[in-house]
Amino acid sequence: MVEGKDKEVLMKALIYHGPGRRAWEETPDPRLVEPTDAIVRVDTVTICGTDLHILKGDVPAVEPGRILGHEAVGTVMATGDAVTTVKQGDRVLVSCINACGRCRYCRTGMYGQCLGGGGWILGHRIDGTQAEYVRVPFADTSTHALPEAVSSEAALMLADILPTSYEVGVLNGRVRPGDTVVVVGAGPIGLAAITTARLFTPSHIVAVDLAASRLEAAKRLGADIVVGAADDPIAAVAELTHGLGADVAIEAVGVPDTFELCTRLVRPGGHVANVGVHGAPVTLHLQDLWIRNLTITTGLVDTYSTPALLDMVAAGRLDPTTFITHRFGLNDMEAAYQTFSDAADTGALKVVLSREAEG
Amino acid sequence: MVEGKDKEVLMKALIYHGPGRRAWEETPDPRLVEPTDAIVRVDTVTICGTDLHILKGDVPAVEPGRILGHEAVGTVMATGDAVTTVKQGDRVLVSCINACGRCRYCRTGMYGQCLGGGGWILGHRIDGTQAEYVRVPFADTSTHALPEAVSSEAALMLADILPTSYEVGVLNGRVRPGDTVVVVGAGPIGLAAITTARLFTPSHIVAVDLAASRLEAAKRLGADIVVGAADDPIAAVAELTHGLGADVAIEAVGVPDTFELCTRLVRPGGHVANVGVHGAPVTLHLQDLWIRNLTITTGLVDTYSTPALLDMVAAGRLDPTTFITHRFGLNDMEAAYQTFSDAADTGALKVVLSREAEG
Amino acid sequence: MVEGKDKEVLMKALIYHGPGRRAWEETPDPRLVEPTDAIVRVDTVTICGTDLHILKGDVPAVEPGRILGHEAVGTVMATGDAVTTVKQGDRVLVSCINACGRCRYCRTGMYGQCLGGGGWILGHRIDGTQAEYVRVPFADTSTHALPEAVSSEAALMLADILPTSYEVGVLNGRVRPGDTVVVVGAGPIGLAAITTARLFTPSHIVAVDLAASRLEAAKRLGADIVVGAADDPIAAVAELTHGLGADVAIEAVGVPDTFELCTRLVRPGGHVANVGVHGAPVTLHLQDLWIRNLTITTGLVDTYSTPALLDMVAAGRLDPTTFITHRFGLNDMEAAYQTFSDAADTGALKVVLSREAEG
Amino acid sequence: MVEGKDKEVLMKALIYHGPGRRAWEETPDPRLVEPTDAIVRVDTVTICGTDLHILKGDVPAVEPGRILGHEAVGTVMATGDAVTTVKQGDRVLVSCINACGRCRYCRTGMYGQCLGGGGWILGHRIDGTQAEYVRVPFADTSTHALPEAVSSEAALMLADILPTSYEVGVLNGRVRPGDTVVVVGAGPIGLAAITTARLFTPSHIVAVDLAASRLEAAKRLGADIVVGAADDPIAAVAELTHGLGADVAIEAVGVPDTFELCTRLVRPGGHVANVGVHGAPVTLHLQDLWIRNLTITTGLVDTYSTPALLDMVAAGRLDPTTFITHRFGLNDMEAAYQTFSDAADTGALKVVLSREAEG
Repeated sequence: MVEGKDKEVLMKALIYHGPGRRAWEETPDPRLVEPTDAIVRVDTVTICGTDLHILKGDVPAVEPGRILGHEAVGTVMATGDAVTTVKQGDRVLVSCINACGRCRYCRTGMYGQCLGGGGWILGHRIDGTQAEYVRVPFADTSTHALPEAVSSEAALMLADILPTSYEVGVLNGRVRPGDTVVVVGAGPIGLAAITTARLFTPSHIVAVDLAASRLEAAKRLGADIVVGAADDPIAAVAELTHGLGADVAIEAVGVPDTFELCTRLVRPGGHVANVGVHGAPVTLHLQDLWIRNLTITTGLVDTYSTPALLDMVAAGRLDPTTFITHRFGLNDMEAAYQTFSDAADTGALKVVLSREAEG
Repeated sequence: MVEGKDKEVLMKALIYHGPGRRAWEETPDPRLVEPTDAIVRVDTVTICGTDLHILKGDVPAVEPGRILGHEAVGTVMATGDAVTTVKQGDRVLVSCINACGRCRYCRTGMYGQCLGGGGWILGHRIDGTQAEYVRVPFADTSTHALPEAVSSEAALMLADILPTSYEVGVLNGRVRPGDTVVVVGAGPIGLAAITTARLFTPSHIVAVDLAASRLEAAKRLGADIVVGAADDPIAAVAELTHGLGADVAIEAVGVPDTFELCTRLVRPGGHVANVGVHGAPVTLHLQDLWIRNLTITTGLVDTYSTPALLDMVAAGRLDPTTFITHRFGLNDMEAAYQTFSDAADTGALKVVLSREAEG
Repeated sequence: MVEGKDKEVLMKALIYHGPGRRAWEETPDPRLVEPTDAIVRVDTVTICGTDLHILKGDVPAVEPGRILGHEAVGTVMATGDAVTTVKQGDRVLVSCINACGRCRYCRTGMYGQCLGGGGWILGHRIDGTQAEYVRVPFADTSTHALPEAVSSEAALMLADILPTSYEVGVLNGRVRPGDTVVVVGAGPIGLAAITTARLFTPSHIVAVDLAASRLEAAKRLGADIVVGAADDPIAAVAELTHGLGADVAIEAVGVPDTFELCTRLVRPGGHVANVGVHGAPVTLHLQDLWIRNLTITTGLVDTYSTPALLDMVAAGRLDPTTFITHRFGLNDMEAAYQTFSDAADTGALKVVLSREAEG
Repeated sequence: MVEGKDKEVLMKALIYHGPGRRAWEETPDPRLVEPTDAIVRVDTVTICGTDLHILKGDVPAVEPGRILGHEAVGTVMATGDAVTTVKQGDRVLVSCINACGRCRYCRTGMYGQCLGGGGWILGHRIDGTQAEYVRVPFADTSTHALPEAVSSEAALMLADILPTSYEVGVLNGRVRPGDTVVVVGAGPIGLAAITTARLFTPSHIVAVDLAASRLEAAKRLGADIVVGAADDPIAAVAELTHGLGADVAIEAVGVPDTFELCTRLVRPGGHVANVGVHGAPVTLHLQDLWIRNLTITTGLVDTYSTPALLDMVAAGRLDPTTFITHRFGLNDMEAAYQTFSDAADTGALKVVLSREAEG
């Protein structure tokens, strides 16, 4: 692929052609551009809710012609001269966040805010991972060589969903042993928040969602109490907490009502950790909240926790494959998108597409 | 006073008689009720902006007949049987927050959220300090014996304004050496935030206010840059910070516009520390902010920092008397209220009333 | 008992009569002395390794005539006038640490260092819990009312052993999800450190001890790897950690060799948390360690974590009864001491004596 | 210099020729080796106490033929292909720590523990800065472009001495406003610890040293109390702290006695931050200290604080040039070494050699 630099070689990729239009089609292979680049063959890839937003046209920074996708596990095919930590043949996790490793933010582990050309760029500002090959900038600080004990499918869940829920939800929310934690929204991110909150052994995990099927998944993954459309989440949390409120509320939906609910669910001194991607302003009832010693956090994932999460997967402490509901071959990209888009009907949480399954 | 328990003895006190009505008039002396009480003779007292709000009727929990005031320095006249840390004759600071010392919140230093009958109660739920004598519940955990090196006037500023700005503004905002800190609002609390932010040697302190006189005070107290009505605070902060934004923004006004401004003034990863008392909801632009790794905090003062602040005053590291603009005798309560209410004309920051000045 | 204040009523208690001499004998019932006291009927009590040290004469502060014991669960029989949070009839945990709740240390949750007459006093500076009744000073801040969901036996383990291992070992050691944690010493405290370390989901827990029986207990309680007399702990940890060393080493023995081992077991940037009670100086190899960014902590338990631990027990997240190997009636105190003293033969970890078992 | 890659060009450098032997002599210019390298012309350089140790033969890793020096300010002459954040002509600070920016330690800001070929390497494992030119590996993460507001001399003090004292002393020691801080040892590092401790406004800074001249310097730089050979430091600290002990003790000597003194100077719950370079084991009196909730830290500088320190210098909050006692031209390297070696006589704290002064 990358060897024959003179003649164009073609690969298949999922290309965005403007709002509502996508195609799995041929396009030139990527090539090394910078000495810090790696070219990675995509062995396993997934689709994120954000990809659906892009396809609706909600993310104007994504221009037509862009290959989508920001999560992958693959094999390093080539590296630039300055790359030292991964080499041809390595199986690697391609993180949703690229880090220049040099800027003020990267030097404090806030890679998502990278000022040096990184951050969330794959499938956004440059071509992404829903393809047979992908160019990965800043490979040394944006990929993770995988130990044998971690399967590619398990690792793939660490490209975005697990570090996002863990860092922006659980760690920002300062979950502690013995806490009462409420997770509002039991989609893939909320479920991952439940899973990673359990790493800190809270006393109670409450899941709030409107869909019974999601609440069933929440129970399966460790929620002690589920609160559905017919129930009152504030009353449920009050009952658990002597009327005080939760220690931590994690917002995993991204709409005003659920955010406001979170601010009402926590006790004085509690934490609201926003993980949801919001498209509209919310109302903050500071007339009630100014006096309550709240801490509210927002954030894009930084992926600083990925090495620790990989350790936990390798040690058998965390099984991220529980989020995977559907599997496809890489060439079934269209079908995978269909299944993931119709999650309400298909029950899809995470869909995985793998080169090995192509046959 | 407290000795003759059988016959009623009268003292003077500032009594709230419903919205817009107050009087400095005679009322019975306070008496010990609980074994944890102390009776304190008020030697020095001040008026808080909150007292003005109460007088407008904005704080319905305050019932007519209540003695106002939650800040004082005085002399212990009597103590209940269980009081062990202060004794008759001690000069003490009466904090704006009483702490039962036993509940979940008090045991973690969050005295402002006390569940055991404390919190902000003086001049609110029980009679306060704008009087000749005051009953102080939970005296062991709600008063501070004063060392000789700390004057009563200096200590008085530690009853509310300094711990409030320090804890809720500077410490919640995580001010660090080298930071750029913006303080929005240069009234007494904002000025105290500037003063206490300096304890951490930020590189730049920017004060934002509409009133030129307040900005002059801000400069005097250590603001490097002042931003007035005609200036653009976002541009001013951007210039200082390579376009990134401030590390910390402290909201010290309490209206929606200034809060929203604070959320726009901080860099990704920055802190917004709300100190202002809000009477209306604010809009939080989560559609922009979800991705910016913000931390927003709110809070009532807990006064856990009071011992450290007293140490710094005793050591000459902090001079809180710079906030005092006017001095009165205790019987001039009416005149003091007038001066403080007309701050725009009188330039009053903090007014102090002292028994010694009576003559 | 406490009702008839005029005539002396006798109870049974374990009294220290100088090195090597103890007796379960009659002595007067305790009475309320301070308004903050409670008298508690001892329903369940245990023996601590420290009690054995006292009996050897290793703790000179304990004078002959002293009733030993600093752990109990019991029933409140009477309270002083200032006690507000527990009342007659309440089932309470009597903590090994009493807190005045007023001093500088108590106000920051460091109750073990109480300057106001608390700290470790029961069975040390005042009469303790190995008796039918005990006077508990500062009852409001030194007892914990028990919820129904927590059995007395489970609660008893929270009087000392669990908060000690959790605070001084796990929390001081900053155990984090994904860490490699080594616990040196698998006696009761070491085993409790293993149990409470698991609250943070470390990737690997390594237990080091010379006794095979203790290592078996360690495995049962969650150690992944056990290192016995014939093994090399440094090599074992190196293998798990790519040669770097452990993130956290918890010293739970109290002799120089094990402490020095801990300092060699941790990686650069690691934490050594000393829990062991030492009787001799240790050598700190600063010529090697100055450059390794170590953090070494020591500490007496403060019991600030007791409420959270009780929550976890009530929620079924933590089962402290796994440490209990032997049960006795309260009057079998002598037999219980015998069994506990001969732990090498009896396999005793924690022995429990209960009034209910007396018949 | 670097342009003519074919013919050897010579420069002057301070070369170590084995214990006790050094020479300022000609040696080939350095050249770019890795794509992440920069070649920097040394404009200003200093000598560290560590260089004297190397010359004595105390650091066996330094082989004869090595150019010494690990601190410099200079001008970038050439950069490798992968370098993006500094460019030819930039004035830069060359830090004493090189960071690969990719390894586990670099990704958490612990650059001093770099596993990827960085850490302290200049003048140690590779040729250093006491030369006309120096090759700087990992230039993007090991140099700091200097703003105009920071003079080269001021920046030079940030190559080692200021981040070392600030990170390993003040930040590891958790100095807080209002604290009592003792600095044991008032040499250059101890003085820098005094200076940077002041950034947090402690109430009291106590300096302990045997030399009156050093104590004078300590006073000049902000120590409130100085304790000399004739005084009792424990009594002095007890007097300041109601007998409790200091909050923080910073060890800035590196011998057993001063370390042990530090452990006796701090209060229960206090911090001992070791900055001194030790050549021998010390005795840790755990028989006394196990119960005192101490935190002891060690560490090599990581230089994560350098950007913040540069900000503070640029903003006029910190003047590091106060440590400079002697100035030389670059070619006066021998004289500079002489002056610095005879500090007891010359009073030298930091000596600076500058290209500009040669003329």
